[in-house]
Amino acid sequence: MKKTRRAYSLGLDFGTNSVRALVVDTASGEELSTAVVNYPSGEAGILLDPKDPNLARQNPADYLESMVRVVKKVLRLARKVRKSFSAEQIIGIGIDTTGSTPMPVDRNGLPLAFHDEFKNNLNAQAWLWKDHTSFAEAREITELAAREHPEYLARCGGVYSSEWFFSKILHCLRVDPKVFEAAYTWVECVDFLPAILTGTLAPEKIKRSRCAAGHKAMFNEQWGGLPARDFLSKLDPRLGELRDRLYETTYTSDQPAGYLTRSWAKMLGLKPGIPVAVGAFDAHLGAVGAGVAPGKFVKIIGTSTCDICVWPNDRPLADIPGLCGIVDGSVLPGYFGLEAGQSAVGDIFNWFVNYIQPGGPEHGSHQALTEKAAALLPGESGLLALDWNNGNRTILVDQRLTGLLLGQTLHTRPEEIYLALIESTAFGALTIIKRFREYGVEINEIINCGGIAEKNLLVMQIYADVFGMEMKIARSSQTCALGAAIAGAVVAGKNAGGYDCFEEAQAAMCGVKPVSFKPRPDRHQVYQELYRLYRELHDAFGTREWQGNLYHLMKELLDIRDRQLARARELAAASARTVRTRKKK
Amino acid sequence: MKKTRRAYSLGLDFGTNSVRALVVDTASGEELSTAVVNYPSGEAGILLDPKDPNLARQNPADYLESMVRVVKKVLRLARKVRKSFSAEQIIGIGIDTTGSTPMPVDRNGLPLAFHDEFKNNLNAQAWLWKDHTSFAEAREITELAAREHPEYLARCGGVYSSEWFFSKILHCLRVDPKVFEAAYTWVECVDFLPAILTGTLAPEKIKRSRCAAGHKAMFNEQWGGLPARDFLSKLDPRLGELRDRLYETTYTSDQPAGYLTRSWAKMLGLKPGIPVAVGAFDAHLGAVGAGVAPGKFVKIIGTSTCDICVWPNDRPLADIPGLCGIVDGSVLPGYFGLEAGQSAVGDIFNWFVNYIQPGGPEHGSHQALTEKAAALLPGESGLLALDWNNGNRTILVDQRLTGLLLGQTLHTRPEEIYLALIESTAFGALTIIKRFREYGVEINEIINCGGIAEKNLLVMQIYADVFGMEMKIARSSQTCALGAAIAGAVVAGKNAGGYDCFEEAQAAMCGVKPVSFKPRPDRHQVYQELYRLYRELHDAFGTREWQGNLYHLMKELLDIRDRQLARARELAAASARTVRTRKKK
Repeated sequence: MKKTRRAYSLGLDFGTNSVRALVVDTASGEELSTAVVNYPSGEAGILLDPKDPNLARQNPADYLESMVRVVKKVLRLARKVRKSFSAEQIIGIGIDTTGSTPMPVDRNGLPLAFHDEFKNNLNAQAWLWKDHTSFAEAREITELAAREHPEYLARCGGVYSSEWFFSKILHCLRVDPKVFEAAYTWVECVDFLPAILTGTLAPEKIKRSRCAAGHKAMFNEQWGGLPARDFLSKLDPRLGELRDRLYETTYTSDQPAGYLTRSWAKMLGLKPGIPVAVGAFDAHLGAVGAGVAPGKFVKIIGTSTCDICVWPNDRPLADIPGLCGIVDGSVLPGYFGLEAGQSAVGDIFNWFVNYIQPGGPEHGSHQALTEKAAALLPGESGLLALDWNNGNRTILVDQRLTGLLLGQTLHTRPEEIYLALIESTAFGALTIIKRFREYGVEINEIINCGGIAEKNLLVMQIYADVFGMEMKIARSSQTCALGAAIAGAVVAGKNAGGYDCFEEAQAAMCGVKPVSFKPRPDRHQVYQELYRLYRELHDAFGTREWQGNLYHLMKELLDIRDRQLARARELAAASARTVRTRKKK
Repeated sequence: MKKTRRAYSLGLDFGTNSVRALVVDTASGEELSTAVVNYPSGEAGILLDPKDPNLARQNPADYLESMVRVVKKVLRLARKVRKSFSAEQIIGIGIDTTGSTPMPVDRNGLPLAFHDEFKNNLNAQAWLWKDHTSFAEAREITELAAREHPEYLARCGGVYSSEWFFSKILHCLRVDPKVFEAAYTWVECVDFLPAILTGTLAPEKIKRSRCAAGHKAMFNEQWGGLPARDFLSKLDPRLGELRDRLYETTYTSDQPAGYLTRSWAKMLGLKPGIPVAVGAFDAHLGAVGAGVAPGKFVKIIGTSTCDICVWPNDRPLADIPGLCGIVDGSVLPGYFGLEAGQSAVGDIFNWFVNYIQPGGPEHGSHQALTEKAAALLPGESGLLALDWNNGNRTILVDQRLTGLLLGQTLHTRPEEIYLALIESTAFGALTIIKRFREYGVEINEIINCGGIAEKNLLVMQIYADVFGMEMKIARSSQTCALGAAIAGAVVAGKNAGGYDCFEEAQAAMCGVKPVSFKPRPDRHQVYQELYRLYRELHDAFGTREWQGNLYHLMKELLDIRDRQLARARELAAASARTVRTRKKK
């Protein structure tokens, strides 16, 4: 057995500010080494416009330069950790990126940004996912689709976003026709990178990611792929013409985009000819790395949250109102990928700690507030909050919503507000889960990953208490890069030391941490009462349909508070008795 | 002229923690000297019970001991300031106190607390206005009155408070019948002090204050004075019996309670035989000191706010729903005194600064937040708050309400919240003013006094902008003590160097500061929009009657915010142009 040659896969995770590389043992999922390199341009890798806070672009050259550095670094580290390791043992590469992050390219598939003429033009760069310059175009697309093709919207939650493919291209066409005219076509960052590594950059050769095309480019085989030419032409005739230079076919990440070219192999220090998987967006491969499967719901919890689950594509599935994306094959081949999310989670906690700075520097850190908040019973503060400081992605799909906090008295303390904010994100998450279940999607297990899931144990415990379900944590701390590595192992195939399909690869390479968070029944009961009140606030401020009166709301919160304060006193007295009894003994 | 002998009046203001004395020149209102002495007992003058946070009592001996010290001190200071001053020139004394602050007394009118048997019994002390131990009795009285004598409630806002006379006595009867039985009768602190100074302490001699009897003891000549014996007996037969040992007649503060006894004159260093006016509660004499008159609305703004105005008692006046008290003669003889209030104003700002401690110690002081908040345009933050952190006194008369803040984003800053809290108290105040006007009470002028009005210029400017009215500030910084001194000048009479009536005394002795705050029309316009939204929130959470939907609310706030942000940019650009033009010149 000792002689069996080990096989490794390389996952590359292109994030908002940096690229991460991960070398994974395909047999065990063991993560041999990992490395991160920051993008060199702009502010933390983002090109900004001081005159327009909505603008966020990236220099495509950053991706290539940082990739070379990070791969060399991760290979060097792997050799350090395991003397027997050799770069020759890497059997495949998988790639995930942010998205939708499209860029204009020339007839050869090279970014316009690489041309001297355009290298300083922000519109010729990659339009980062969080660029919101296209908000007017997004509204225009939504309105036209609502009138003429409501089916386009049905699978993306009813609203087409300013963060997505066509909004961005249409905005470029409007504000910088020169760039638009100079572009032969547009490619997502997630398609550009596998293509350049495999020499398939030419627009007719490039394999487009199913995941990226999905709802973000409104691609669906039901209506023959991309939106109708006629539809795009109504937005602008030139957009209709562009459609012919986009794509007809999309691919899932179990397909190779191609094989590593000799020149890139040399630059990266890898074996030429190894397969590079078709790319996918970060959250989707993150869900794969966390072990997503039918009934297994993955929550990627960071500054915002992405919720992902899958549903067999041969079983009927209704349109689920308010869901951002339902795309066949976007996560796992053979399954609908279902994507939901919360526009801000960690960002709300960070806002409170960094901008409101409650309690001053000594008492107002995440750690200090968490410690004090952990001592509170549900409802003891009398507070209730809405988690809409950055709008609501699911289930309301409405950016024009804002935060709300109620129940403050003259005694309210920072840690109580901190807990109320955590609870509000839990209630928001529960609203998503309930929506999935209402439409028949089974959720038997919840696996969490991302920075908050890893670092804030209180958040995980509160989520368990609010949902009434065990919260598991993915074993890997970099599920996106792991998911990419899994794709790399799948395209390499069993003969090379990889796998034939995602399920097999996940079974071998994924897992959860030994410690999980179990719901506390008494707290879950109180949270059910509080959730009912949250849901009423949510509907009163978030939907046009709700009609009613909120007179009872503050009163019910005070009733719960009074009951929980009494309970807290009982518990304190019981604990004091225990201490006394112990002392007597 | 130089030979005309000057006359002075002495005002004594018995507060929650200390007593203040003020020597005022009756001709000009000039405040010659002022002094403060803290009560020696308990915590800052308040007797507490560690087992019951609702309990707040005072030792009646503190009043006497501190009075002697403060009068000596203020006379000493007066002599320092003006060599020609002599205590002989003091022609009268006026007294105001907190209330309702009743105490049980013996057959001679002496507090039971002065008896050895009761000196350590908290129930035999003065029951300070903010004692809330009687919350259950208050509810009981309210319910019985609602069933059998709704007229009793009509003039006190529909709810009888735990802070008031009969709630406290009934609670004493229930929890400490021994004290109740030992008491011959109960007197308000405000009646006890003039009586002891004038030797009229015997229950049949003591002159009871109209202001104190008013709504706080449900006294009204319409129904023959105090509540019917039958009504009180239904609460407890012994309470019905007590009624016969209370009082039939009440007096306004233009009447002398009596004349300073020889022994008290000696202790205080004053001339014996000078008149002491019938007392009144602090806010009422504060309004007199601020210059209250028909059409002149006085706002006493401190930790909470008291609003006072008057209405001729020969002109019809409807019951005004939600008003705490409408009492004939409680403020000025011949006028209904109308009293409203906000349960927390300065307390909300203090809560935010002291307990939430936003921005840390360097950036989170009142001053730092005020400076930053002053630079914001109305609506620029997108925030809207309800000022209910301590419930709502007027117009909802509901303690079981709590604070609310909405419109938070990830960019919300502490100074924006601070401004929203200030605005919320302005909106709450405007709601009171609108209620007065709806019921025909004219308000042509607003005079502010109290700590917040004196110290926080931003609050006054925002109030002007929100109300669309000029905000004037009373000239005196101690309007309560000044009002008491005015009463002293009135009971002394014109011949002694005083006045024949309050109007004349006010004309000579009151005034406003030269600086006032004028509304800025463009800001007032935006505040009118914001007030409409505030009122909708107020009604949705505060009344049973409201029915509707709040979907539009966050959207409208964001629309206003976007408009005001654009306006702020315009203003900044215009100001930059001005600077450039100036530099060129």
